Amino acid sequence: MKQVAILGYGTVGSGVAQILEDNKEIIKKRTSEEINVKYILDLRDFPGDIFEKKVVHDYSIIVNDPEVDIVVETMGGIDIAYKFTKEALLKGKSVCTSNKAVVAEHGPELLKTAKDNSCSYLFEASVGGGIPIIRPLYTSFPGEKVEEIVGILNGTTNFMLTKMDEEGCKYDDVLKEAQAKGYAEQNPEADVCGHDACRKIAILTSLSMGKTVYYQDVKTEGITNITKADFEYAKKLGRSIKLLGMSKNLDGKCLALVAPFMIDAKNPLYSVRDVFNAVCVKGNMVGDTMFYGQGAGKLATASAVVSDVIDLAKNAGKNIECPWEDIKADMATDAEKKFKYFIRVKGKDIKGIEQFAGVENTIEAVDGEIGVITSIMSEDKFMEMKEKNADSILNYIRIL
Amino acid sequence: MKQVAILGYGTVGSGVAQILEDNKEIIKKRTSEEINVKYILDLRDFPGDIFEKKVVHDYSIIVNDPEVDIVVETMGGIDIAYKFTKEALLKGKSVCTSNKAVVAEHGPELLKTAKDNSCSYLFEASVGGGIPIIRPLYTSFPGEKVEEIVGILNGTTNFMLTKMDEEGCKYDDVLKEAQAKGYAEQNPEADVCGHDACRKIAILTSLSMGKTVYYQDVKTEGITNITKADFEYAKKLGRSIKLLGMSKNLDGKCLALVAPFMIDAKNPLYSVRDVFNAVCVKGNMVGDTMFYGQGAGKLATASAVVSDVIDLAKNAGKNIECPWEDIKADMATDAEKKFKYFIRVKGKDIKGIEQFAGVENTIEAVDGEIGVITSIMSEDKFMEMKEKNADSILNYIRIL
Repeated sequence: MKQVAILGYGTVGSGVAQILEDNKEIIKKRTSEEINVKYILDLRDFPGDIFEKKVVHDYSIIVNDPEVDIVVETMGGIDIAYKFTKEALLKGKSVCTSNKAVVAEHGPELLKTAKDNSCSYLFEASVGGGIPIIRPLYTSFPGEKVEEIVGILNGTTNFMLTKMDEEGCKYDDVLKEAQAKGYAEQNPEADVCGHDACRKIAILTSLSMGKTVYYQDVKTEGITNITKADFEYAKKLGRSIKLLGMSKNLDGKCLALVAPFMIDAKNPLYSVRDVFNAVCVKGNMVGDTMFYGQGAGKLATASAVVSDVIDLAKNAGKNIECPWEDIKADMATDAEKKFKYFIRVKGKDIKGIEQFAGVENTIEAVDGEIGVITSIMSEDKFMEMKEKNADSILNYIRIL
Repeated sequence: MKQVAILGYGTVGSGVAQILEDNKEIIKKRTSEEINVKYILDLRDFPGDIFEKKVVHDYSIIVNDPEVDIVVETMGGIDIAYKFTKEALLKGKSVCTSNKAVVAEHGPELLKTAKDNSCSYLFEASVGGGIPIIRPLYTSFPGEKVEEIVGILNGTTNFMLTKMDEEGCKYDDVLKEAQAKGYAEQNPEADVCGHDACRKIAILTSLSMGKTVYYQDVKTEGITNITKADFEYAKKLGRSIKLLGMSKNLDGKCLALVAPFMIDAKNPLYSVRDVFNAVCVKGNMVGDTMFYGQGAGKLATASAVVSDVIDLAKNAGKNIECPWEDIKADMATDAEKKFKYFIRVKGKDIKGIEQFAGVENTIEAVDGEIGVITSIMSEDKFMEMKEKNADSILNYIRIL
């Protein structure tokens, strides 16, 4: 029997306990041994809950109990979660987590600690909720050079953009609806400003490149500037607007970016609606693949954690290798990033743009302005143009 | 160093050799040891090929060489491929394959042979070409009760149906085009009659249920009856027609079927176009997921084989467990299968249908006939109705 301690009995933590209980028989069959929840760490008590008696308030009970094999960190936050994870690993207890913030901040260090102590650190649930993506990246594509990762990595913003696209809603209204449904926090910044997606693309890219991409180095733009008018142009172009996390391996240099993009109907991400997430991975041999599913939600995320728990149970006493080293990845400069841009220009005068960029197409959709699609240009040149034409450029969206 | 022998230097086999060579450095890093192709078994010689000197014509050289750790079976066919696989496993050499026919016919027996001889039998490439689906099914969803699998499992027919849908082409014309492009064989039966998809859904369902679903027990209808007229109705209904392999776990009983289905635009399979494949997996905890990619093609399929080779290299000397037992799964009867059906009726008289089924909707799209959508009914009742109205029913398609 393997003994598990769950740190944090919130949404995901309680989901993990529930799955380990409800699917006990299936799990026992697959693991060849029973997995038992011995402790749940939380500041609160849960009278009446079926796991009521397992709740403890003192982490030292867990970390000093030699019977505990696996620690499930579903606390959230960074500092204490990191500290508890590190302590467990140093005692040879394997840890799995849904906490992307800790993984993005301390991933390579914790992976090394796990390796040094013959245990493992897994984090399938930190990206894409229930979507299997972390494990497939290193077990299904171990022989691939991953050239590109592009994903819809945040369910809240995808819900909002889907509403704006399909129902013509305004940004403020869909934000309110997302908050009412519990998808967005009262302070929605982590979602709408792209910080959440940023950590996720940093993790995925680190894994695919084998070196660390620091989330601080990933240029991140959210969806707060996206308006109804942008969607009117998108519709005319047969496109939709999605918040994407993307990275490319440019001959060993890493291009990474989080921003809204216009994508066309033939892109498999186009039909990823509502709170669903999807990650496209392009390998040099396998070509284009996509992984799709619920990017959040109690049981979907907990299911990913449970897949880690089972992996840890089956690999007790040894390190599950993860190809992510504590070496900083070489990041591409803005001069090396190249996109087409859609630009909305006040009035009809696009001379200021033409001085910097080729113009591929113009579109009229909203009175008193014009839409321009540039030819491919570098990000630094675009930013220079944007600054020079700050008075006339109403908004811009990169095109994929 | 791990020594590999490749059986069959055709499309997939030569792709495996190419990836092992081209991505040698990546693979060495991930596997912590070198993987070397020692032999290639083929009846032909390949003068001028970089692997020319590794070609042998006699399998006994391979199976009797104690240095060979891993056998890659990419021969095709059943009897000899099965015989060679069995012989390798009995000698403790692990085997991986892209040969769905052998897996569907002999899978559980070969898995047991592997287990008994402390080696492994892997077959990621047998379903979905480059799409990671076999390994995720048992490593990413080990704690799930898989309730449903629905997939576009055949690239040739998806290419044909996409052309018919988007360009209004006729069946005979798209078949000719598929043959000209090398997607379909001169005898296209295995693809267009659904036999290929049938073996694949049998394999996926066996893995998800842990018991054997014999492909002979999976009711299979191909796309040979699908016409331009059917797509005209589909368009009016905002739907497309796709050849799906599907299975459901009905309280332990297995419903399995291969047939054309009408699916709506919100289904993630709707936008899977051209030769691409995708598999949706619904778990009782994780909810809906989808895996998408190239279902065929030299390097995509070979990439899946290489992921197995690396897995085998990392797990040398032990058995990688696969939850598929040699016990026949309990199959649902036609009375337990329930669908909505779209029916095209000659003339306008639908009384013969109304005697058996509720009618939810009628659609007019083609002169001299009418389209009917039934309410949910059982497959046996539908078949009875179809027989009784054989003179007036022009075609039928199940609705998802």
